[in-house]
Amino acid sequence: MTTLPSDMRALTISHPLSPTFSNLSFTRLALPSAPTGTQVLIHVRAVSLNARDAQIASGTYPAPIQVREGIVAGSDAAGDVVAVGEAVSRVTVGDRVTPIFAQTFLHGEHDPDYQKQGLGGGIDGVLRDYFLCDESGVVLIPSHLTYTEACCSVITGVTAWHCFSYPGCALKTGETVLVLGTGGVSIYAAQLALASGCRVIVTSSSDAKLSRARRELGVHGTVNYRTHRDWDVKVRELTGGRGVDHVIEVGGKGTLVRSIRSCRPLGNVWVVGYMSDYAAGKVEGQDDNSEAPELAKEILYAQARVHGVVCGSRDMFEDMNRCVEANRIVPVVDKVFPWDEAREAYRYLDSGAHFGKVVIEL
Amino acid sequence: MTTLPSDMRALTISHPLSPTFSNLSFTRLALPSAPTGTQVLIHVRAVSLNARDAQIASGTYPAPIQVREGIVAGSDAAGDVVAVGEAVSRVTVGDRVTPIFAQTFLHGEHDPDYQKQGLGGGIDGVLRDYFLCDESGVVLIPSHLTYTEACCSVITGVTAWHCFSYPGCALKTGETVLVLGTGGVSIYAAQLALASGCRVIVTSSSDAKLSRARRELGVHGTVNYRTHRDWDVKVRELTGGRGVDHVIEVGGKGTLVRSIRSCRPLGNVWVVGYMSDYAAGKVEGQDDNSEAPELAKEILYAQARVHGVVCGSRDMFEDMNRCVEANRIVPVVDKVFPWDEAREAYRYLDSGAHFGKVVIEL
Amino acid sequence: MTTLPSDMRALTISHPLSPTFSNLSFTRLALPSAPTGTQVLIHVRAVSLNARDAQIASGTYPAPIQVREGIVAGSDAAGDVVAVGEAVSRVTVGDRVTPIFAQTFLHGEHDPDYQKQGLGGGIDGVLRDYFLCDESGVVLIPSHLTYTEACCSVITGVTAWHCFSYPGCALKTGETVLVLGTGGVSIYAAQLALASGCRVIVTSSSDAKLSRARRELGVHGTVNYRTHRDWDVKVRELTGGRGVDHVIEVGGKGTLVRSIRSCRPLGNVWVVGYMSDYAAGKVEGQDDNSEAPELAKEILYAQARVHGVVCGSRDMFEDMNRCVEANRIVPVVDKVFPWDEAREAYRYLDSGAHFGKVVIEL
Amino acid sequence: MTTLPSDMRALTISHPLSPTFSNLSFTRLALPSAPTGTQVLIHVRAVSLNARDAQIASGTYPAPIQVREGIVAGSDAAGDVVAVGEAVSRVTVGDRVTPIFAQTFLHGEHDPDYQKQGLGGGIDGVLRDYFLCDESGVVLIPSHLTYTEACCSVITGVTAWHCFSYPGCALKTGETVLVLGTGGVSIYAAQLALASGCRVIVTSSSDAKLSRARRELGVHGTVNYRTHRDWDVKVRELTGGRGVDHVIEVGGKGTLVRSIRSCRPLGNVWVVGYMSDYAAGKVEGQDDNSEAPELAKEILYAQARVHGVVCGSRDMFEDMNRCVEANRIVPVVDKVFPWDEAREAYRYLDSGAHFGKVVIEL
Repeated sequence: MTTLPSDMRALTISHPLSPTFSNLSFTRLALPSAPTGTQVLIHVRAVSLNARDAQIASGTYPAPIQVREGIVAGSDAAGDVVAVGEAVSRVTVGDRVTPIFAQTFLHGEHDPDYQKQGLGGGIDGVLRDYFLCDESGVVLIPSHLTYTEACCSVITGVTAWHCFSYPGCALKTGETVLVLGTGGVSIYAAQLALASGCRVIVTSSSDAKLSRARRELGVHGTVNYRTHRDWDVKVRELTGGRGVDHVIEVGGKGTLVRSIRSCRPLGNVWVVGYMSDYAAGKVEGQDDNSEAPELAKEILYAQARVHGVVCGSRDMFEDMNRCVEANRIVPVVDKVFPWDEAREAYRYLDSGAHFGKVVIEL
Repeated sequence: MTTLPSDMRALTISHPLSPTFSNLSFTRLALPSAPTGTQVLIHVRAVSLNARDAQIASGTYPAPIQVREGIVAGSDAAGDVVAVGEAVSRVTVGDRVTPIFAQTFLHGEHDPDYQKQGLGGGIDGVLRDYFLCDESGVVLIPSHLTYTEACCSVITGVTAWHCFSYPGCALKTGETVLVLGTGGVSIYAAQLALASGCRVIVTSSSDAKLSRARRELGVHGTVNYRTHRDWDVKVRELTGGRGVDHVIEVGGKGTLVRSIRSCRPLGNVWVVGYMSDYAAGKVEGQDDNSEAPELAKEILYAQARVHGVVCGSRDMFEDMNRCVEANRIVPVVDKVFPWDEAREAYRYLDSGAHFGKVVIEL
Repeated sequence: MTTLPSDMRALTISHPLSPTFSNLSFTRLALPSAPTGTQVLIHVRAVSLNARDAQIASGTYPAPIQVREGIVAGSDAAGDVVAVGEAVSRVTVGDRVTPIFAQTFLHGEHDPDYQKQGLGGGIDGVLRDYFLCDESGVVLIPSHLTYTEACCSVITGVTAWHCFSYPGCALKTGETVLVLGTGGVSIYAAQLALASGCRVIVTSSSDAKLSRARRELGVHGTVNYRTHRDWDVKVRELTGGRGVDHVIEVGGKGTLVRSIRSCRPLGNVWVVGYMSDYAAGKVEGQDDNSEAPELAKEILYAQARVHGVVCGSRDMFEDMNRCVEANRIVPVVDKVFPWDEAREAYRYLDSGAHFGKVVIEL
Repeated sequence: MTTLPSDMRALTISHPLSPTFSNLSFTRLALPSAPTGTQVLIHVRAVSLNARDAQIASGTYPAPIQVREGIVAGSDAAGDVVAVGEAVSRVTVGDRVTPIFAQTFLHGEHDPDYQKQGLGGGIDGVLRDYFLCDESGVVLIPSHLTYTEACCSVITGVTAWHCFSYPGCALKTGETVLVLGTGGVSIYAAQLALASGCRVIVTSSSDAKLSRARRELGVHGTVNYRTHRDWDVKVRELTGGRGVDHVIEVGGKGTLVRSIRSCRPLGNVWVVGYMSDYAAGKVEGQDDNSEAPELAKEILYAQARVHGVVCGSRDMFEDMNRCVEANRIVPVVDKVFPWDEAREAYRYLDSGAHFGKVVIEL
């Protein structure tokens, strides 16, 4: 084991929360204590950001979480194990690993208590050089991925996978998946669906992004929702009138009703985020329809299934990694920022200009 | 085979559609032609009404169906087979049978085309002395039920059963089911859930009805939603804070958001009707909350599953009848009207005074 | 907290393993250390036996487990919490609890590693006055059950529940369940199925036991497999030729092929035990058919589903307890032995004379 | 519509059934009558053979079917619609179509009655120039497939798809699938699994075939079961000790126990055929192990799920075709025979030399 420094860099969140991210502070913290028992110490190499990070730092996160003053930011890291406790058996020093989002959500269905354990929100996050956790809270990185790529799977990948693995309505090869916008979950969901032999349709307000989705990902259909305000009609056309089997719904303003209308009977709308409280104009898939949709009626006559979905378990992460490895999936990294520009990374994400993931390398 | 008359009584719907049901006409029609091939002729003995019947006749049915001038009303009948075609093998003369609601929905998942085949709406209904259909469109009546009881299972029972048999989120014994109001689907769902070893909670604006639900059905909990405007809070209390596993949501005004809040994580809201267009004040479970609920957010943070559900298949009907027979379930008949008072039956249903089913005996 | 003694009674297993159970020793052990962290100390009041206990002690247990010299016997206990560590939050002193069988199998699907944690086989068991474990390894006892009744749920109940809750083929109300014999899992499965509104058929070689099953449990059909060697034919008759939906298969000699033939297409055979290595003549449902059944052919043409099932998770235990509580299910206790006659309890179980569970009270 | 001839070529099966297929007769039959109602007349262009065809003609088919003297052989055809009845709405003249195997199995779960409707066994088959059936009994051919390719999907493809779409244990991307041998179902299953983003392992007794599977299909692992008699051990090695998620088990002699041992806990063995009665030495994956495996014990300790599966429904066929179309899957045609050499086609299939499908072009 190499000698470790006594302190480390960290990015922490101060109050008041700020839409300009000026409340993100570069600080130095003491290194975590040496791992004991089943603990492992991880040298963090790369961290990807999610809309959640920007929402937490700026005070627009819709979930009922108290952001502690000085909490370490960030949830999605990749690094390597540099020290282990005496009882560790799942990993070994030198292993490349990713901490899971909710450190105690290992198996089975989600429990609300897990959410309080979410990194960089409920508890201290990973934007720091070293991170200490229980060995049960990490998964191995697929061999073909760099740290920068691997850190993109944590929330976005496992949330998309969670959607696609619900018993009774899991994704089946040959189905059609609609993803709203080109944010992290949507692009990851598109990649998983394509690897699963599914057809994929993407919406965006940017023809450039849609063109990139066709060219780089190989999606089958695209709809510019600014050009086509009734984008659900366009989506149905792209399916020969049948409707899609799954929608990844990121919760833009007024999108839910159109997502429902895009579905075939018994189709699934997977609500994975809620962007409407978040600063308007930044998020794709928005609609200025402020009418109250009669959603009960829409759901009934579409015979739709609308599911609220959070990030999945360690079991799901490992299942997903088997898929990522077998299909050599490489998460789409939009832009990489060095440590010193971590705030710029937040601002870039916040601008909505990204296609895929924004990463900070340490 | 007894000699059949040459004509028969029928109740038909005329335009303009009317909220007073004065457009329901007692008419005489020629008897259907003798059954050939796989057809069967049924002597109808009893017909139960659904909210759908009142909505169709009064022009408030929310589904996109053209009501043909002079169409025979009614969808839920029980009777006996009085003649069969030469190729009939599933039933025999003398069998007591119930026509299924969508005559071609036999197996598997629902297809929108089936809905056009719904009796008494898409096609001619059963409020007449004799009904001719294919043998594939009937099921046998459980031996312990009278015609009057058996005709109550068609839409209400099979819709409730459909909710409870979705793969991946089917009703499990020991779960808790919330039913909104005391209409046909809700009461039937309560009976099925009780027979399945589940706990049941009922809402109503009438303490008398709630008392009846406790006394006659044996439900475990009741909430008067007039007394408790935030009835979801009360429902959660009744589950020790955990939330219910299933809600039978009949689509009253503003109820969906409270149904979602009543659920445990991964709980299911089964939207089986849409009453809000229907004359206000008649339907239980209503709320005058006219705010647009941010449903995407509600669904996400509740991790709920909201399903739009229509009446199920013949396979489901037969599965349900096995349950009805094994548990000696007797559908709750609120009030029986003779043929001459069919219009009064509609009006009584329309008044919302019922607890369970309203039946017309022929 | 009452003052605890310094040592305690325990029943341990010595080598060589013995079919007469003379290798079961009454010993005294030091009391476990005081609970720390998330540990709890349980005062054990009653322990029920399973065929597994007799198999382990006698050396006929078919699973690949090394029985350690001097291991404490027993897996299914009920008692009360007498002391807790400083970090315990799930229970409190005075709570009545049951340790779960595989102490680390809390959520999700079974992992083979869990089996090594099985009480009284992989690790020290519960036949002693005090038992120390992590708070995560216990569940609360339903309020209507005594210790003697509650200890009967651990392996038998949770295994039966596991069978009935597989996604995609879970037990549905109205289905028919066949249970082989009158041992612990079979009787518990019968009780759960009856509470779920299912029809139940039981087999036995004893008319007295079958009569008891009818009278005390209210099962719908019985077959004496000694009188009817081709009991599958008889079972099919009892279902009107359709076949049953589920079979609880305890692994008697040659029974599997008949279980398969008893099923409807897509029916489920749940293999929950393997008795054939166990001393012949003791186990019900046996057959002396030594022919190699062409099982691939049988499974194919029956379109059967045959599942190997072990004891379920803590989540399943808690779901089951909700069912037990809602339906006031009381596990069937066949015979209770005092501590001094623990060996007699093993011998009585081993004789196959029991109907339901054999319990040792401490 | 072109003028149709008055008679046509057909291949019929005579008694006594014969292992040399000398009982297959080239005959001429009158053309079917013109389609009426919902009937369609299909000009058959290509027919693929299955082991079932050889078994039926030679008298080794294990299913309880009486082969009628003079029955038209063959079940898997592709052709085009040349005439339609006046009520036909699903297809039109000129459409390229494939009849489904069991003509009445459209939706939902399989019913034993459907099997009696199997083409070329229960009822007259498709080895003839023209075939008349109800429009409900056909599906459209994916646009990228020739008749010769499309006729390969009927039994093999839809059976494989049926395995992969069971609720609760359906194929998920990233899983590992083991297929036994290189016959029609196995190769089609491999293709579907690969398109679904799964890893695939193939067994064979021929290194040449295994090499072809790697080169042409891109499977991830191969095992020569002659070189490795304990091929399950080898399969587990290829999965890093974890075991596979699914096995396509074609029912060779003694293979079932090894298939079970190849699985991870809760892995699925899909028994899709039964070859052991069929002439020995012809079928791959055989084993001369004549010991009675203690299968109940094997299934229990593997926690396996063993399913008997037959050919699926029209719904499944259409779902599969969506996958075939989206992924441009082309069924593997091993060898094509002209009409005059139909008997040689049977003999070639019977020799076991094939890799994928054997087709007769008309």
